[in-house]
Amino acid sequence: MRTVDIIEAKRDGRALTKEEIDFFVKGYTADEIPDYQAAALAMAILFRGMNKDEIAYLTDAMMHSGDTIDLSAIKGIKVDKHSTGGVGDKTSLVLGPLVSACGAKLAKMSGRGLGHTGGTLDKMESVPGMRIGLSEKEFVDQVNRIGISIIGQTAKIDPADKKLYALRDVTGTVESIPLIASSIMSKKLASGSDAILLDVKFGSGAFMKNIDSARELAKTMVEIGDSLHRDTRAILTDMDEPLGRAVGNSLEVKEAIATLKGEGPEDLVELVKRAGGIMLSQAKVASSVEEGEKIILKAIDDRSGFEKLCALFEAQGGDVSYIRDPSKFPLASHIEEIRAKKGGYVERIDSFGIGVAAMKLGAGRAKMTDTIDMAAGIILCKKVGDKVKEGEVLAYAHTNKTDVEEVYKEISDSFIVCKEKVPAHTVVHEYIAK
Amino acid sequence: MRTVDIIEAKRDGRALTKEEIDFFVKGYTADEIPDYQAAALAMAILFRGMNKDEIAYLTDAMMHSGDTIDLSAIKGIKVDKHSTGGVGDKTSLVLGPLVSACGAKLAKMSGRGLGHTGGTLDKMESVPGMRIGLSEKEFVDQVNRIGISIIGQTAKIDPADKKLYALRDVTGTVESIPLIASSIMSKKLASGSDAILLDVKFGSGAFMKNIDSARELAKTMVEIGDSLHRDTRAILTDMDEPLGRAVGNSLEVKEAIATLKGEGPEDLVELVKRAGGIMLSQAKVASSVEEGEKIILKAIDDRSGFEKLCALFEAQGGDVSYIRDPSKFPLASHIEEIRAKKGGYVERIDSFGIGVAAMKLGAGRAKMTDTIDMAAGIILCKKVGDKVKEGEVLAYAHTNKTDVEEVYKEISDSFIVCKEKVPAHTVVHEYIAK
Repeated sequence: MRTVDIIEAKRDGRALTKEEIDFFVKGYTADEIPDYQAAALAMAILFRGMNKDEIAYLTDAMMHSGDTIDLSAIKGIKVDKHSTGGVGDKTSLVLGPLVSACGAKLAKMSGRGLGHTGGTLDKMESVPGMRIGLSEKEFVDQVNRIGISIIGQTAKIDPADKKLYALRDVTGTVESIPLIASSIMSKKLASGSDAILLDVKFGSGAFMKNIDSARELAKTMVEIGDSLHRDTRAILTDMDEPLGRAVGNSLEVKEAIATLKGEGPEDLVELVKRAGGIMLSQAKVASSVEEGEKIILKAIDDRSGFEKLCALFEAQGGDVSYIRDPSKFPLASHIEEIRAKKGGYVERIDSFGIGVAAMKLGAGRAKMTDTIDMAAGIILCKKVGDKVKEGEVLAYAHTNKTDVEEVYKEISDSFIVCKEKVPAHTVVHEYIAK
Repeated sequence: MRTVDIIEAKRDGRALTKEEIDFFVKGYTADEIPDYQAAALAMAILFRGMNKDEIAYLTDAMMHSGDTIDLSAIKGIKVDKHSTGGVGDKTSLVLGPLVSACGAKLAKMSGRGLGHTGGTLDKMESVPGMRIGLSEKEFVDQVNRIGISIIGQTAKIDPADKKLYALRDVTGTVESIPLIASSIMSKKLASGSDAILLDVKFGSGAFMKNIDSARELAKTMVEIGDSLHRDTRAILTDMDEPLGRAVGNSLEVKEAIATLKGEGPEDLVELVKRAGGIMLSQAKVASSVEEGEKIILKAIDDRSGFEKLCALFEAQGGDVSYIRDPSKFPLASHIEEIRAKKGGYVERIDSFGIGVAAMKLGAGRAKMTDTIDMAAGIILCKKVGDKVKEGEVLAYAHTNKTDVEEVYKEISDSFIVCKEKVPAHTVVHEYIAK
């Protein structure tokens, strides 16, 4: 078999066989197939697409390109959630403890933030002592003991995806549904959970700019899960404003804590309720999504979700006193008030703009080797639908940097204010199951 | 400027600017842009195409990626011919001396053979002593002195094309008209001639499999030449049977010699007459193509073309006694008769099959580092339209190899014989000028 023949077949619109896809993934992972052939193939896939079978073969081959995690030693149904990445998305830190408190098992591998989006691992590390690098045995033991663990993906998981993702990033081949779907699903499937809920975000702060492409991606991933025999479902959620009010690592952890104490922002609570309801039904804890939603709300009310968050941090070495007393998180040296230039109603908050601004304040990375300022970020005082008066505070910018006047302006410009009344955003737009 | 933005622009169907194309060609030539980005861009170009301006920018940028030959010291109009490559294509060795004998100046850089196609340089080297590596000064001086020189392209000409061509070969991005056209034209324009005639071949033995794609390629190249102010014209010629009767290096040189002595095969004479007529009109030696054709035929009749061939070989160190007495060329140790299995009329001779068979007999290279057996090759006794009796000789296979029974069969299989009478092939199908 020759790689150039595989490239030409895809270029000419022929579906690739399982053998061809396996040959490519194995050869590329082993550095036997050069980057330039992989780049040409990725571009051909971007133009020609892939059918259901090809996508399943590709996912399966990438999933098996490295280690797969064996969670069979964990009793019960292991559920996992994956978000395609947004701004202010601290959902895992709320949802994980809640579903675990309700009886589902959550053995989750998470990622770091890059560009305008944050990552759960970074947020967790804002609590001193928190370890995200457990061994597979520690990971499994912890989930058996307390029902939850969230750790970083090991280097040995899905090496094919790591190589291909880095290549796609610099070759203009990111925006391909088959490649995005197989990248996400191969990692999720390699991490071993029985059931997966995908939170596919759309809007200015999300990877998918509109609901149609988000739906296509979601359906593709649900199909992959189905063909590889995992209970996979998806929700399409709005990113036309940041999720909740906090953007930035320790700021988001504090908001997650507040939410588990029943003091969360409306949109985050709605998302957690809907997603949690689905996950509890996947875990067979609830007999329906609606019943699951009620159980989730109860776990907020009775603080069992909050206690599970404490248990999670304690088990992984984090200083739980920060969780029990969030005022211990250090604040940034400067907090700037961003004020409205005119009155009216907030029509939209450009999530991408807010995400990039938070990154520039120190909360994120422009490149993977940058370090993060845990205290930096943005607190939104106004959300879509809110009335705002001229001169009123729209947001607070938290930073340890000086000379960031330009960033304050970007935050201000991210608020689109109009004259007419605007309804508040719905977060969860669609639920997709097989 | 970032390469990934250029790739994405082309991927999304936007025309690239002169600045973007210059940035890419310079960066790629200087090894600052990696192969994987060039491969992705080439694939995007293959799918999206390029407009007239982009193709002209790309050609211009590649042409100036290395040295350009200055032929201004040569008096008169310098004409050049380029063939897209065929089987049995010894045209340059006949046409060059003829147009030069008629008063045009031919300062030609030629190539080597690869795969099923032969190259003029290899053919010339079948004459002992022949040098194809002249300095630029020797090259210019020789054309001034005797009106003709044919040499190899120096490494410093069009390095961008050399890199890109090698990359395209292994990334499934060869079959792109803008990339083929700019590759050919950038080399031709860098070699400095005033006027260029392109012989675009189509059919089983050619790169372009049908006349429509050949016409598109020809028109694209004529447009490039026009926008870069060189008199560029093209002919579309048939490769549905090998050109002439000889395939293989010294066998083809002998056929070229015979043709210059008035004993050439009909199709080769037709091609040389048509192409020569056009080139003489480009060189202003003739006032029309028709007048040029008459002058060409006269130069065959009066042997002035043959004498020019002798002068060419003599000037470049070749042993002219071989040209004057072609029986001096060593014959292969074995000459196999390939006989017809059934009677009828020759409907088609698969040029690709014949080209590959000749290569396997020793006449060509499977890869660039292979060495060539100058004596090996095939002589066709029957051409399309010829009547053939069962058991009659179709071809002679010349080889120094043993154990090539399989190749003899391939030669035999390349002759498609049918019951009905078939007209002989026309070689030149269209003439394209601005």
